[in-house]
Amino acid sequence: MKPNRAAADDILELEERALARWCRGDPSGFLELCAPDVVYFDPFIERRLDGLPALTAHYEALRGRISATSWELLHPHVQLAGGMAVLTFHFVSRGAGGDVNRWNCTEAYRLDPDGWRIVQTHWSFTGGPARSS
Amino acid sequence: MKPNRAAADDILELEERALARWCRGDPSGFLELCAPDVVYFDPFIERRLDGLPALTAHYEALRGRISATSWELLHPHVQLAGGMAVLTFHFVSRGAGGDVNRWNCTEAYRLDPDGWRIVQTHWSFTGGPARSS
Repeated sequence: MKPNRAAADDILELEERALARWCRGDPSGFLELCAPDVVYFDPFIERRLDGLPALTAHYEALRGRISATSWELLHPHVQLAGGMAVLTFHFVSRGAGGDVNRWNCTEAYRLDPDGWRIVQTHWSFTGGPARSS
Repeated sequence: MKPNRAAADDILELEERALARWCRGDPSGFLELCAPDVVYFDPFIERRLDGLPALTAHYEALRGRISATSWELLHPHVQLAGGMAVLTFHFVSRGAGGDVNRWNCTEAYRLDPDGWRIVQTHWSFTGGPARSS
């Protein structure tokens, strides 16, 4: 169990470092951590993004536009098997105007030759109301 | 590449069978496919569900209450490494009243002794508006 626990700690640390940069308006922490074949969902896009070039374009459009005065990564949980790990957590961020956003997040990591890399990201709002479109 | 392709096909077939039952009001297809340590997000719950007993309670409360006249699993994509696989897709379902729901879905599968089992499910709405709470 020790190696799994250590790997889980490593993954959580990678995620927290990337989030800290993200909350200062810098998406490069995540971009450096993503595999070439990363896929990505968030609530603002109509279609899953496939591949690092698509995700890079999405993130670069947000560079300097994200700012959180504080944030918390809550209830992190890592499920490891073979060379993959699934990290799930809740994320709460507070903006300068006092606004609070609550998120669900799933990050799938893969142990690539260069280390753990994100192959799938899924962000969604926590406890949102039903929506039909 | 052939074994990975075959495993991806197997996983997609498992998912489609469970979804077909789900859309007839029967959550047992998913419950039979979930590992004991499954974790789960959807837009209606405030906190991630951890473990099969919690997910069973959630699904049983919905038994017989879900009905889709038609549904489509779109853009399925499987990322395999070692004994895990991450399946992502869009899902569109239509109800009897003509309502259409569009979803993002991430399913993480693990190859357990009994076969592929879901260890993580994340459902969210596609292209939803920003929400603060």
